[in-house]
Amino acid sequence: MKFGVLGTGMVGEAIASRLAELGHEVRMGARDAANPKARAWASKAGGKASSGTFADAAAFGEVVFHCARGDAAIEVLRSAGRENFRDKVLVDVSNPLEFPPGAPPRLFTAAAGDSLAERIQAELPEARVVKALNTVNANVMGHPEKLSGETDLFVAGNDASAKGKVTALLREFGWKSVVDLGDLTAARGMEAYLLLWLRLSAALKTAMLNVKIVR
Amino acid sequence: MKFGVLGTGMVGEAIASRLAELGHEVRMGARDAANPKARAWASKAGGKASSGTFADAAAFGEVVFHCARGDAAIEVLRSAGRENFRDKVLVDVSNPLEFPPGAPPRLFTAAAGDSLAERIQAELPEARVVKALNTVNANVMGHPEKLSGETDLFVAGNDASAKGKVTALLREFGWKSVVDLGDLTAARGMEAYLLLWLRLSAALKTAMLNVKIVR
Repeated sequence: MKFGVLGTGMVGEAIASRLAELGHEVRMGARDAANPKARAWASKAGGKASSGTFADAAAFGEVVFHCARGDAAIEVLRSAGRENFRDKVLVDVSNPLEFPPGAPPRLFTAAAGDSLAERIQAELPEARVVKALNTVNANVMGHPEKLSGETDLFVAGNDASAKGKVTALLREFGWKSVVDLGDLTAARGMEAYLLLWLRLSAALKTAMLNVKIVR
Repeated sequence: MKFGVLGTGMVGEAIASRLAELGHEVRMGARDAANPKARAWASKAGGKASSGTFADAAAFGEVVFHCARGDAAIEVLRSAGRENFRDKVLVDVSNPLEFPPGAPPRLFTAAAGDSLAERIQAELPEARVVKALNTVNANVMGHPEKLSGETDLFVAGNDASAKGKVTALLREFGWKSVVDLGDLTAARGMEAYLLLWLRLSAALKTAMLNVKIVR
């Protein structure tokens, strides 16, 4: 299957590398087609990997991952071209975090009370947005076996078949339990959880952590 | 030890009952000293249990639990009398949830980006506020063994000895892992997590759930 990955940071590289490792065709997109990180990644990842602009990557993918920073999301998606997302599954991995100096991190969506995933869906009404993977660190996303036990991952979205496709892919990544939290408004909870995650990560001095739901 | 419990709802009753079960002296407080739920609880709970006004309960307790609804918190604490909280440990179990009609639940603290626990601390600067237990349902709070496996609970607060006291009490309740998330700003994460908890509870069709942190 063909994937587009928007973003060349830790998250974009982790997702793109895992997809390539699983034998998929992957194009990593950046603002500039000559982005050295995207080029280096593509040459390292081998034959089925390529790089280009955000628009190149979005056009290439049957499924597209949004892995840019939350505060750049809307601008990145606009520059990728609305027509390149029509009817496609768009997996939003980002978080609406901001880091004000001298104060704890906060969500830039807080005042409106919505979620970044819903803003992305509103920006691209013809895409089928699925929120996923934003609740774990880049090093865990594609390799849940790095944690010492099984944990849970969450998906939210308005399109059941898109969530099914993403869930199947997450199982390829190694996730054994993927909980469907319902429509895209559930992304509010998935994103708000980051405020707890950041404190947990600081208290436990590791980013390699996730939750297991116990009933 | 002597405890005050403010609130006669599910949470207040669960906490007060568990404390009484463990042999502590407990006074449950309500707006009105003749509150029938508080009186019924006290007569059922036996010799070391009593009831009274919010002020009676706060004055009685060496440690006081705030178990009223989040949106009533400040008013309840004011009516309990600032002088009754001086140097006391005040455990805030509440959540700043509101339920707008036709829309998902949200945090009424969201626009300001703070937490209800911090507002309570600001209202009662001489109290030693500890946020705890707000991440689990009333039926789990005092009886974590009702879940099918061990899970984690969190505390946050500005006073280390107060957190130590609350952590020891949580161990009496049966909690084996209590993670100290740091100062009271960490309550922002503990409260924001409720937005995820509510969706999890709906998806899994149970309120009997909690998270285990896996590294």
